[in-house]
Amino acid sequence: MAEEDPVTTNPAHYRVILENELVRVLEYRDEPGETTTPHVHPNSVMVTLTDFQRRLTTDAGERDVEMSAEQVMWLPAQRHAGANIGRTATHTIFIELKGDAAGDVDGRVLGPST
Amino acid sequence: MAEEDPVTTNPAHYRVILENELVRVLEYRDEPGETTTPHVHPNSVMVTLTDFQRRLTTDAGERDVEMSAEQVMWLPAQRHAGANIGRTATHTIFIELKGDAAGDVDGRVLGPST
Repeated sequence: MAEEDPVTTNPAHYRVILENELVRVLEYRDEPGETTTPHVHPNSVMVTLTDFQRRLTTDAGERDVEMSAEQVMWLPAQRHAGANIGRTATHTIFIELKGDAAGDVDGRVLGPST
Repeated sequence: MAEEDPVTTNPAHYRVILENELVRVLEYRDEPGETTTPHVHPNSVMVTLTDFQRRLTTDAGERDVEMSAEQVMWLPAQRHAGANIGRTATHTIFIELKGDAAGDVDGRVLGPST
């Protein structure tokens, strides 16, 4: 796994719920106002189980992202930190791809694909 | 995509909601009593958005599968047909892996990993 694995950097928020040689699946949970420190995501599919209102920051800038519950988005490999800027708890699933499919972090990419 | 792609064989139930060179994501919906005809899944991650009570059949036999909402399971590459044997509608997301990660169908495998 990459450096700054969120399970290591932010264990209060991220936990592994499934893993094999092809994928690792993380569950993310937080409460309004909570933040994460910088961490790396490989190429992943995000599935929101709740509404999601979030400020993402990276070396190149910041971006606010708002998603509804039960949305599915592509998250290209990236490094960021996040803050729950909404009024509700977040519950989101990340299906991380492994091996070549994990991709390389692009410092200009921030948040899910638009 | 493999023969017996569920989007082709069962278009009333399966639809593509996201696709790129690494993954294809399907949304599955049905009502109690509805069935699907035989179709093929590559290696996939399933995320249930509702409870899920289902009878799966393949050439080698049948298996009843019950899952709760918001569960995440690994579905090894397989060919099956399904029936909603519960009392509630089903809403499930399948994150299908592509390329070598899609795997080969094993006729003895039925349903999610236990």
